Amino acid sequence: MIQAAILGFGVVGSGVLEIIKEHADHFSGKAGGVLNVKYILDIRDFSAHPMAELFTNDFETILNDPEVSVIAEVIGGVEPAYTYTKKALLAGKNVVTSNKELVAKKGTELLKIAKENGVSYMFEASVGGGIPIIRPLNQCLAANTINEVMGILNGTTNYILTSMFKKGKSFETALKTAQELGYAERNPEADVEGIDACRKVAILASLITGKEVNPEKIYTEGITKITLEDIKAAEKMGYVIKLIGYIQMCQNRLFARVSPVLVPNNNPLAVVEDVFNGILVVGDSTGEVMFYGKGAGKRPTASAVVADMIDIAQNRPKGKFMWTENDDKDFMMDISESSSQFFVRVKDVSEEAAEKIFGKIIVSKSDEFEMAFITSEMNEKEFEDKKKLLGYGNILSCIRVHR
Amino acid sequence: MIQAAILGFGVVGSGVLEIIKEHADHFSGKAGGVLNVKYILDIRDFSAHPMAELFTNDFETILNDPEVSVIAEVIGGVEPAYTYTKKALLAGKNVVTSNKELVAKKGTELLKIAKENGVSYMFEASVGGGIPIIRPLNQCLAANTINEVMGILNGTTNYILTSMFKKGKSFETALKTAQELGYAERNPEADVEGIDACRKVAILASLITGKEVNPEKIYTEGITKITLEDIKAAEKMGYVIKLIGYIQMCQNRLFARVSPVLVPNNNPLAVVEDVFNGILVVGDSTGEVMFYGKGAGKRPTASAVVADMIDIAQNRPKGKFMWTENDDKDFMMDISESSSQFFVRVKDVSEEAAEKIFGKIIVSKSDEFEMAFITSEMNEKEFEDKKKLLGYGNILSCIRVHR
Repeated sequence: MIQAAILGFGVVGSGVLEIIKEHADHFSGKAGGVLNVKYILDIRDFSAHPMAELFTNDFETILNDPEVSVIAEVIGGVEPAYTYTKKALLAGKNVVTSNKELVAKKGTELLKIAKENGVSYMFEASVGGGIPIIRPLNQCLAANTINEVMGILNGTTNYILTSMFKKGKSFETALKTAQELGYAERNPEADVEGIDACRKVAILASLITGKEVNPEKIYTEGITKITLEDIKAAEKMGYVIKLIGYIQMCQNRLFARVSPVLVPNNNPLAVVEDVFNGILVVGDSTGEVMFYGKGAGKRPTASAVVADMIDIAQNRPKGKFMWTENDDKDFMMDISESSSQFFVRVKDVSEEAAEKIFGKIIVSKSDEFEMAFITSEMNEKEFEDKKKLLGYGNILSCIRVHR
Repeated sequence: MIQAAILGFGVVGSGVLEIIKEHADHFSGKAGGVLNVKYILDIRDFSAHPMAELFTNDFETILNDPEVSVIAEVIGGVEPAYTYTKKALLAGKNVVTSNKELVAKKGTELLKIAKENGVSYMFEASVGGGIPIIRPLNQCLAANTINEVMGILNGTTNYILTSMFKKGKSFETALKTAQELGYAERNPEADVEGIDACRKVAILASLITGKEVNPEKIYTEGITKITLEDIKAAEKMGYVIKLIGYIQMCQNRLFARVSPVLVPNNNPLAVVEDVFNGILVVGDSTGEVMFYGKGAGKRPTASAVVADMIDIAQNRPKGKFMWTENDDKDFMMDISESSSQFFVRVKDVSEEAAEKIFGKIIVSKSDEFEMAFITSEMNEKEFEDKKKLLGYGNILSCIRVHR
């Protein structure tokens, strides 16, 4: 009998309790042991809850109970989650989490502490919600060198972009609906500015390389500037616009980026719609493999947390999910070193003028007011220079294009 | 240092050797130990091979070498693979395989022998080639009750159906091209008659239920009768025709079927094209999760075999991948107990006559010669009765429809 504690009884925490209760029998078969929730930590009053006796507001009670061997940290944010996790690992307790912010910011240190104390720090739920992605990356794809990962990692922005594409809504209207449906928070910044996706890219890049990848060093651009005109012009050329977390290995150096991207219709990510996530992994042996499902939500996320708890209950070896500090200042490529095709929408610029600057271009739309086109592949710095020639005042939008 | 042997140096076997050689350093980092190929069993002459010293044609040499702890059986077919696997497991050696026929037909016995001898019998490569699916089903989705699995499990038939759909080729022409490209075997029966997909359904159903599912008891229908007319009429109504392996749990009973199915365009499987596979798993907590990638081919399949070998090298616990004998004669639902909507194509039948028999129908195409329509959901037996009323001679095709 494995005794567990849940830290934080919010959406995910209550889902974790539900799943453990519902599946008690199921687990005893699958896990060869039963998972039991002994404590739930929350500062709010749950004295009227049917399982009120499980609640405590004192973390030390959990920490000092030698029976508790696994803790599900589903508080979110850096503090107090960081302090609790550190104390728990130092006390020899396994910790599983859905907290992508903490894993992205403090994962290196927490993984090191876990290893030194012979326990696990696991975070399947931190990327892709209920989609199994961390384990496949670590285990199933162990026989591959992973050269590229391309993912729709944030359901909120994907819902907004899908609404714009399918229903012709503006960004503002689509965001408002997303907020009304509970898909977007009242302060949507972390989602729409790409910060959430950036944390997930940092986690995936760290896992792939085995080295710490600081999310602050990842070029991140959100979707707030995407307009319906961009989406329509892209559609005409056979593309959809998605917020893409992109990771590429170039001669042992890492390139990582979060930005809106024109994705061609024949790419499997093009059909990942609404709140769904899709993560395309390119291995040298497997080729393209995609994982698809709901990237957020109470039950999907909670089921991934519980899967990690079962892994611990089954006493899997420690330290699988691992990366270490990285002193190599040259390890990460800067955005200025990368190349891309670009989608450009301009006003008061003729096709001839654009061709003079960019050489061969593919034009989607061209009338007396506006023109949209796609450039050939060029370095980001070169593109900046050409934008200057185009005249910043004439540029309505610039979005990278995936080949 | 883990010593391994490869049984069978065909397409997959040579891929396994390649990947192990290429990734030797990589593994030492990931697996905390190095995997070394000590023997390759093949009856053909490889004396001119650069690694000729590894080859043997005597299985006993491998069996009697106490250093060998993991064997990759990539011979295929039941014999001699079955005898070798059994002997190896009885001798306390772990066995990994890509051999879906053997796992589907003899998996129950081999898993039991493995368990009794404290070793593992693993088969990630047997379903979905390079796509991680067995592990996610066992581990990541451990916290879910899996109610439904729907998969495109055979790349050859998916290539043929995609060619028919996209290029307007007939079944015969598409098959011929597939054979020329090496996607289909000279004797394509196992693929086009659904036998290969049926074996994979049996393996997945066994894993989900923990009980033996005999592939011979799974209703199996291939794609040889699908015509271009069916595909065009389906397209007009917003469907594509795919060969679908389907598993559903109904009140603790299992329903499993392999057949062509009209899949609606908004289903994620509709866009799985060419030789790609896609497996949609519906968990009670995660909702829909899809795994997508190349389901066959030398390197994808070999990488899945090597992933299992690494799992063993990392000394993961035994007996995870497990099901046992099943005496319950009532466990599996017969096709006659299931319900579906049906796509029907007829000649010399009026819309009025069809409506009189089927009630409300959705008509795709109706001219003086032919009509195609979709019925409402009904029991298979009921549908058989209605077919009789329609007149067997008037029926051009009947295909099940996924809602």
